[in-house]
Amino acid sequence: MGVGRPHNLTELEILAVDADVNVADGHPRQQLTPSQAAVVGRIPEMFEVAAATSFEALEARAHRAFMDAVGQYRAPVGTGRMLSCYASSVGIDVVARCLSERARNVALIHPTFDNIPDLLKAWSVQLVPLEESDLDIRGVERIAADDLDCLWLTTPNNPSGCVVDEARLRHIAEFCAVRDLVLVLDTSFRGFDRRAQYDTYALLDEIGGEYVVIEDTGKLWPTLELKLGIVVYSPRNRLRLERAMSDVLLSVSPVVLQLVEGFATDAANGGFAQLHGHIADNRCRLREALGNLDAVRVVDNGTRISVERIEIVNGHAPQLWRELSARGVHVLPCGPFHWARPSDGESYLRVALGREPETIERAVSEIRRSMEKHSQSRATLTKPALL
Amino acid sequence: MGVGRPHNLTELEILAVDADVNVADGHPRQQLTPSQAAVVGRIPEMFEVAAATSFEALEARAHRAFMDAVGQYRAPVGTGRMLSCYASSVGIDVVARCLSERARNVALIHPTFDNIPDLLKAWSVQLVPLEESDLDIRGVERIAADDLDCLWLTTPNNPSGCVVDEARLRHIAEFCAVRDLVLVLDTSFRGFDRRAQYDTYALLDEIGGEYVVIEDTGKLWPTLELKLGIVVYSPRNRLRLERAMSDVLLSVSPVVLQLVEGFATDAANGGFAQLHGHIADNRCRLREALGNLDAVRVVDNGTRISVERIEIVNGHAPQLWRELSARGVHVLPCGPFHWARPSDGESYLRVALGREPETIERAVSEIRRSMEKHSQSRATLTKPALL
Repeated sequence: MGVGRPHNLTELEILAVDADVNVADGHPRQQLTPSQAAVVGRIPEMFEVAAATSFEALEARAHRAFMDAVGQYRAPVGTGRMLSCYASSVGIDVVARCLSERARNVALIHPTFDNIPDLLKAWSVQLVPLEESDLDIRGVERIAADDLDCLWLTTPNNPSGCVVDEARLRHIAEFCAVRDLVLVLDTSFRGFDRRAQYDTYALLDEIGGEYVVIEDTGKLWPTLELKLGIVVYSPRNRLRLERAMSDVLLSVSPVVLQLVEGFATDAANGGFAQLHGHIADNRCRLREALGNLDAVRVVDNGTRISVERIEIVNGHAPQLWRELSARGVHVLPCGPFHWARPSDGESYLRVALGREPETIERAVSEIRRSMEKHSQSRATLTKPALL
Repeated sequence: MGVGRPHNLTELEILAVDADVNVADGHPRQQLTPSQAAVVGRIPEMFEVAAATSFEALEARAHRAFMDAVGQYRAPVGTGRMLSCYASSVGIDVVARCLSERARNVALIHPTFDNIPDLLKAWSVQLVPLEESDLDIRGVERIAADDLDCLWLTTPNNPSGCVVDEARLRHIAEFCAVRDLVLVLDTSFRGFDRRAQYDTYALLDEIGGEYVVIEDTGKLWPTLELKLGIVVYSPRNRLRLERAMSDVLLSVSPVVLQLVEGFATDAANGGFAQLHGHIADNRCRLREALGNLDAVRVVDNGTRISVERIEIVNGHAPQLWRELSARGVHVLPCGPFHWARPSDGESYLRVALGREPETIERAVSEIRRSMEKHSQSRATLTKPALL
């Protein structure tokens, strides 16, 4: 696993996987809780259960447990409108392909993680940025004056944690239904934020428009990439999702389905409260350690997701990022999230919080050290070699 | 998991997953051997090993163990030119995307499993069929008179089991190098056939052309879709494979890497001999039970892979397939493998052999029953409702 000159956020994350201090990727890397470890301990039995149980039943159980745990009681479990896949990115690739066949003009939230615009562009989908700060009905109407086929939102958004609340989603979904736009939601981070756990399917199905929701278990629990993406779609649907998905996979693993069922059940029975506490504690650690530095500003006060964005107000963010990387401390520079105007994100860094507290402590102490050095010296500002 | 009217082989396989007798898909569904079960029993420990070991080391160990087990001693382990992914189909999707950017005109082996042409076509790659029966240097030269950028072979091929031997691969690779064509090999089934286990990388690197090899652990062992695709590429490479892969994944699971290492080590220490015996026994069962029927012909005498193709010489194959499906016995109709001329495959059915012997017995007795009925009656021939 090697990367040459990195081109995107994931390649930066790949460089960090084995780093001394990896707070780059948003994948969960904290330890298993005792009750999670008990679920993992049952994996060998899950091979036997898989032999004795229909795939359909295992899939429905996993979908039901996960959807219930994140408040999605009206998700269409068992209807055939929930397609499991190896990871949400595989789902994004499939949805992007289907949009390229039927709905080429897409307004995409800005900023957001760069593999979403990159996959859409790879499939020759035309993108218009939809500013996260402009996500009210007027903002959407302004954008949709263009010749649009689809609106694609990430909620909670990455890196900001910004949630489209129920009232706003209702407005947006009604607008999409009236204009016959496909509404795509990537909800990968909703497990972290109860404010994103109102029943999206009840709302969307009541309105009756065409939608695709990409659900994801992969950001929540340290299951070492044994995870599930789920592409859920509306009763009325013009995208050939099922067919496109079948070009990439026959089925996910019945072991992963059982693992997801186990972790989701645990989450509903206190595991989410623990997880939310863990992330909140790490966020406190970071904010307390960096908050009294003049040049660091917390940007997303209300965020609850497993990453934290900080602004480096003295213009040193690119240099800080480079120095930290050179010392084996990997955070993400935020330019690439701003896929339409990378310079908008240049002064921000993203720190992952799904880690052991010691990792966060080490990361913030290294950031402090670098910042203090800079506040004392007048180091030459140089652009980083990449991005 | 539901499928409407099936459009491709995988959708037919999805319909069969929970069927009474599923000999449709080529995924391994036999029981674990005792030594394989012991590896599965260690999965909980693998979570601890993953926490204590670098990803890079785990990946190199899995790659080394797998490549050694299938005779690929010169595979470029640890060079960064081996990209792990969730499944070979994810690899095919990524390679297809990269070809669409740089090498749009592809000669693709015919027949082969239909998700390969379907993914290439989805990415707007232009395909020319390269007949499996024509895979000598003259056949390749005839094809390459067209404006070609790439040759894509599956070896051993699916469904025929046809292997491109070392001498032929040398001719073809030299031809590609001289003409500056990318040579893509899908070797997913090579674990079943020692004749496909000469060192492909030694040969290709000696010749020095541009290549991509898609390796796969997913067809071999009943690990319930916990598997690895590996996209391996030549030192000289114009395709942006690394970047395209990073749009779909950060990394595979370090647990799956350890599982692959364990199964590959077991395979090298007698597991492959057992597997080959298991498949050969099931093939015998099928051939003995069907061989004395006038209307059934074994087509691929030399094949060793985990599927068997039979020809129904009385023209009843489509009807037989439909009758069997209606009784919960799922085989694959072979038309769709012949992606350029489906009618070429209409008289063939494919039976999966990676099953328990009882499943094979039940499938062949149902096939016999149907055939004998037909030999006694003059049933009306009707086309199947699909494909």
